[in-house]
Amino acid sequence: MDTVAIFGVGLIGGSFGLALRSAGFTGPILGVSSAATIAQALDLGIISEGVSLEEACSRADLIYLAQPIRQIIDVLPRIAPHLRSGQLVTDAGSTKVQIVETAGKFISRATFLGGHPMAGKEVRGVSAADASLFRDRPYLITPSHTTDLQNMAVIEFLDYVRLMGANPVILDAAEHDRSVAYISHLPQLISTALANLLAGVPRARDIAGPAVLDSTRLALSPYEVWRDILETNPAQITAAIDEMNGVLLSLKQQLTMPGMEQMFEQAAVVARSIRKK
Amino acid sequence: MDTVAIFGVGLIGGSFGLALRSAGFTGPILGVSSAATIAQALDLGIISEGVSLEEACSRADLIYLAQPIRQIIDVLPRIAPHLRSGQLVTDAGSTKVQIVETAGKFISRATFLGGHPMAGKEVRGVSAADASLFRDRPYLITPSHTTDLQNMAVIEFLDYVRLMGANPVILDAAEHDRSVAYISHLPQLISTALANLLAGVPRARDIAGPAVLDSTRLALSPYEVWRDILETNPAQITAAIDEMNGVLLSLKQQLTMPGMEQMFEQAAVVARSIRKK
Repeated sequence: MDTVAIFGVGLIGGSFGLALRSAGFTGPILGVSSAATIAQALDLGIISEGVSLEEACSRADLIYLAQPIRQIIDVLPRIAPHLRSGQLVTDAGSTKVQIVETAGKFISRATFLGGHPMAGKEVRGVSAADASLFRDRPYLITPSHTTDLQNMAVIEFLDYVRLMGANPVILDAAEHDRSVAYISHLPQLISTALANLLAGVPRARDIAGPAVLDSTRLALSPYEVWRDILETNPAQITAAIDEMNGVLLSLKQQLTMPGMEQMFEQAAVVARSIRKK
Repeated sequence: MDTVAIFGVGLIGGSFGLALRSAGFTGPILGVSSAATIAQALDLGIISEGVSLEEACSRADLIYLAQPIRQIIDVLPRIAPHLRSGQLVTDAGSTKVQIVETAGKFISRATFLGGHPMAGKEVRGVSAADASLFRDRPYLITPSHTTDLQNMAVIEFLDYVRLMGANPVILDAAEHDRSVAYISHLPQLISTALANLLAGVPRARDIAGPAVLDSTRLALSPYEVWRDILETNPAQITAAIDEMNGVLLSLKQQLTMPGMEQMFEQAAVVARSIRKK
């Protein structure tokens, strides 16, 4: 791959550009974003030029869609007529079923590969971009066809993902959306719920310790990012909230009973296992 | 204060000893703990000698009870007959109503001051003791009588707490137990519940990102510490779980509706406010 275009040069798109450079990519990195973002991304040395959607499609071998989910879904039919065979289009959206379905409908000449780097910060924007954002993090890949993994452009892209220090994990789009409902969306909503609850606790600010600071970190996340996630994965998120309520009720019922010890032990086993690499 | 005795030289007791030294205390620090812990605490230079309960009560001006809550409640009547006027007994238990009530029943000659440093780690034991554990953390104080705050020994103790970098916060024991149900106990149970839920998510370990790692840190906490907390604050914890379930249900109902934006905004306001010092 000689030329890369990043659509949406924010935290994720900007970090992808920086990580690509760190991984040894030396070709042009084109940016498709608002004028203000393009100026900032040029200043930060993340992109080599700002271009139009059409020019990006005409020049780039890899098109990296890093906008909010809704914009990714909107841009797919717009780029489709400008694509050609041999190009790879991939995205960084946090839900995959609707994006992969839309790509399947519109992208025919180029190859589309759904992607989701499990990395982020509570802040947005290109100024927070970080070359090591993906390091030691899973990079979820949801190919539309398993044969896509033999595609030369896909193989090269995944090599770069590994060079960025990320761990590609292949899974089905539906399996992805179900799993991230528990791994990512539920933790976000729990943090949002807890922070809302704390609004009613007198002197919460005076007595907050490390537990509640950790537990409310995600509550700092901007709604603009989450609106699209909630709107494109509501069934799985609803199921996850219901299950969470069920487990909390069962903890409540067993609060001072021997079953509680097992709940703590099981929780510690899981918490340790997801920390082991 | 010339001599201090720490009962239960674990993570909190050991950290208190180290922090006391860093704060400039030069007198003897006596330890009352199991033989193995005493040996380790001597090795680490945290205590100057291991002594019996009786000797600690006879020699120390400050008696610092840092055992699990149940043991604090058990030791109060045992130390009572050995205490004298002018001594200060304080504790580091995570719930306060039952401890303060027990102290009120048994401790008459010495002064008792309920305390709760809002600091901790997911690991136990003196080997994890850390001189800076209390730094920049609230140190909750629940005096039995407001006049206790004019007591010379209390004033000196609170001066040391400030020298350790902690922020003393005075509140009533019942108010304490209600507030920490939301600030500390609920976050713990949420993390325990989430980790239990994740046991049923396929490939959770492969796809875990920063959100779920933060959200399950508390799930690593040992049940031995939590059993006593749950048993001594069940009514407040039950109320907090009920409220949490209510907020989660309301998030579920508003998932893709405009009210969600307000929930995110309110959460971010609270999350930011408890981070401001």
